[in-house]
Amino acid sequence: MSESKTEKARATMKKLFGGRGGAPALPERIGRFTVDHLFGDVWQGEALALEERSLITCSVLVAIGREPEQRVHFRGALNLGIPPEKLEEMIAHVAHYAGWPVAMGATRVLQEVIGKEASA
Amino acid sequence: MSESKTEKARATMKKLFGGRGGAPALPERIGRFTVDHLFGDVWQGEALALEERSLITCSVLVAIGREPEQRVHFRGALNLGIPPEKLEEMIAHVAHYAGWPVAMGATRVLQEVIGKEASA
Amino acid sequence: MSESKTEKARATMKKLFGGRGGAPALPERIGRFTVDHLFGDVWQGEALALEERSLITCSVLVAIGREPEQRVHFRGALNLGIPPEKLEEMIAHVAHYAGWPVAMGATRVLQEVIGKEASA
Amino acid sequence: MSESKTEKARATMKKLFGGRGGAPALPERIGRFTVDHLFGDVWQGEALALEERSLITCSVLVAIGREPEQRVHFRGALNLGIPPEKLEEMIAHVAHYAGWPVAMGATRVLQEVIGKEASA
Amino acid sequence: MSESKTEKARATMKKLFGGRGGAPALPERIGRFTVDHLFGDVWQGEALALEERSLITCSVLVAIGREPEQRVHFRGALNLGIPPEKLEEMIAHVAHYAGWPVAMGATRVLQEVIGKEASA
Amino acid sequence: MSESKTEKARATMKKLFGGRGGAPALPERIGRFTVDHLFGDVWQGEALALEERSLITCSVLVAIGREPEQRVHFRGALNLGIPPEKLEEMIAHVAHYAGWPVAMGATRVLQEVIGKEASA
Repeated sequence: MSESKTEKARATMKKLFGGRGGAPALPERIGRFTVDHLFGDVWQGEALALEERSLITCSVLVAIGREPEQRVHFRGALNLGIPPEKLEEMIAHVAHYAGWPVAMGATRVLQEVIGKEASA
Repeated sequence: MSESKTEKARATMKKLFGGRGGAPALPERIGRFTVDHLFGDVWQGEALALEERSLITCSVLVAIGREPEQRVHFRGALNLGIPPEKLEEMIAHVAHYAGWPVAMGATRVLQEVIGKEASA
Repeated sequence: MSESKTEKARATMKKLFGGRGGAPALPERIGRFTVDHLFGDVWQGEALALEERSLITCSVLVAIGREPEQRVHFRGALNLGIPPEKLEEMIAHVAHYAGWPVAMGATRVLQEVIGKEASA
Repeated sequence: MSESKTEKARATMKKLFGGRGGAPALPERIGRFTVDHLFGDVWQGEALALEERSLITCSVLVAIGREPEQRVHFRGALNLGIPPEKLEEMIAHVAHYAGWPVAMGATRVLQEVIGKEASA
Repeated sequence: MSESKTEKARATMKKLFGGRGGAPALPERIGRFTVDHLFGDVWQGEALALEERSLITCSVLVAIGREPEQRVHFRGALNLGIPPEKLEEMIAHVAHYAGWPVAMGATRVLQEVIGKEASA
Repeated sequence: MSESKTEKARATMKKLFGGRGGAPALPERIGRFTVDHLFGDVWQGEALALEERSLITCSVLVAIGREPEQRVHFRGALNLGIPPEKLEEMIAHVAHYAGWPVAMGATRVLQEVIGKEASA
C-alpha cells in the first residue's frame, strides 16, 4: 500500500510539475514524507478538487511570503489550467489579508513565471 | 459611484454574514475602507467566484493563525453552501504548509462554529 | 553603571505604564534583560524620541498580531499623550502592510483600552 | 505496519501527555495524520533524542507564538523530565530570535503550567 | 474624484520615491488599488504626518522581514529627510520586538541603500 | 565587567563561527547589543548547554524562514560537532510545526553549507 501511495503521488506530481514528475533531491526522511505522505496521502483527499487544492496552496504561499515555493506552485496551477488572471486576482485579494508586501513579491514571481512560459 | 460600491459591499456581506449584513462598529476610516474598498471593490473582482474567494480567505486565515477572524469567515463559507468537509480538508492541507499548530487552532474554531450551527 | 541602567529603565517604564512602574513578575534572567537591557539601554537611545519609539513599538505589535502586548503599549502611548486618533490611523495604515485580520484584532484592543480609560 | 505506527505513536504520546495518552478528538484525516504520521513516524526518527525533539518543538511553538499548543508541549517537556529552568532559559533565548512579545506570552503559559503542576 | 485620488497618490509617491514617481508595472486591479486606494486614500489620512507614516511603514517592513520592500521604503524615508541614524535605531529597537534575524537582514538592506546614495 | 562580557562573547563566537570570531560590521548600538548583550550575556546562561542553544537557535531560524541567518548558525552547529543528520532531522520535524515551505528552504541552505564544508 505504501508503494501505491508513491504511485498516486507521482501521478499528482506529474500533473502539477510536468515531465520532471519528481521532487527535488531531498534527504531520505523528508523526501519520503514529501512523496508518500504529502503528495501520496494529503493531496489525494477527495473533499477538495485538485484545482481547489492548488489554489489553496498558492494562496497560503502568498500569505506566508514564500517566493521560491510560489514559483513551483504557480507553475503547477498554470499546468492544471488555472488561468493567470485567477492567480493575479488571488494575489490582489490576499494583499488585503496578509499585506501589500507579500503581494508585491508574489506579483514579481507570477510575472516571471508567466513570462517564462510565454517565451518557452 | 462610491454609493454603488457600498451597495455591492452590503449585498456581498449579507450573503456571507447573514441578517446582520454589516461590519462590526469600526472607526471611520478603517470602517469605510472595509466596506467600500474591501467588500465593495476587492471582493467584487470577477476573476474569482465568491465561493473561491471565501475558500481562499479561510485558507489564509488558517495559515496566519487568526482565530477570531476564522470564526467570522468559516461561518461565511458555510452560509455560501461550502460543506464543512471541504473546510476540514482545507485545514488538514494547510497543516502541511503552515504547520500543525495553526491547524489545531483552526480545527477547534471550526468544530465550535459547526457545533453552534448544528444546535441553533 | 548597571544600577544606573535600572534607574533609567524605571523612569521610562513609569512614563509609559504609570504608577505601577514595573514589569510583571518575570523569571530572573528574562526579568533582568527586560529592565536593564530593554528599557534601561535599548529604549534610552537618543536617535528616537520616546513618542516615536512608542509609536514604532505599537505598529510592530499590530503587524505581528500580539494583542496582549498591544494592550500594554497602547496604554503606554496614550500615557505619553499620543492621541487615540493617531493610533487608529496607524492601525488603518498597518492593515495594508500586514493584513486586515491583525488590524481587526488591534481595533478591538484599542477600543477596549480607550473605553477603560474613558470610564476610569 | 500502519497499526505498528499507531502503537509507536500511542507510546510516545503517553510519555509526553500522560494518562490520557491520546490526541484531542479530531476529524478523521487530520486525526490519522496526527497519530500515524506525526507521532507514529516523524517523532520516531532516531537522529534526535525524545528530549531534544520536545525542546525543539517547544522552541518553535514559542517562536511562532502559539500559546495553546505551548501549554500542551511545555507539559510534555516537564513530563519527560526537562527541568522548568531549561524551558525558562529557552524562552529568554528565543526572545532574542523571535522577539519579546512571543516570549512574554510563553512566560505566562509556562508560569501557569508550572503553577498547576505544583498545586496538583 | 477618483482622478483626484490618483493625483494625490502621484504627489505622495514622488515625494517618497523621487523622479520615477510611479509604482512598478502591476496588473490592472492591484495597480489601481496601490495608486488610488493605498497611496491616494490611506496615505492621505491627516492623523499621521508623512514622516510618521514612512517610519511606521519601515518599522513594519523590518518586523515582517520583507527586504525587497524595505529597500523601496528606506529610500523613501531618506528622501523625506529622515536621518539614517533614526532608521538604524529603529532597526535596533525592532530587533527586540521581532527578533535579531529580521534586524540583521534590515541592517544589510539599510547599509546597501545608504552606500548607494553615498556613492551616487 | 562590560569588558568581561565582550571577552565571553568573543570566546563563544569563536567556537561557533571559527577563525573570524567576530560579528559582521554593524552600526554601533546594534553591534554592541549583539556582542555584549546577546553573545556576552544571553548565550552565557548556564541552564542550557551550548549545543542545546545552537540547536534551539537553528530550529527557530527554520521555523521563521530566515535563510541567510540559517547559513551562519547551521555552520555554527556543525562547528560545535552537531552531526548534519541531526540538523536534517530537525528540519523534517520543524516542517510539521511551521510548514513544508520553510523546511524546503532550510534543506537547500543545509545542503549548500554541507557541500561547501565537504569541498573545503
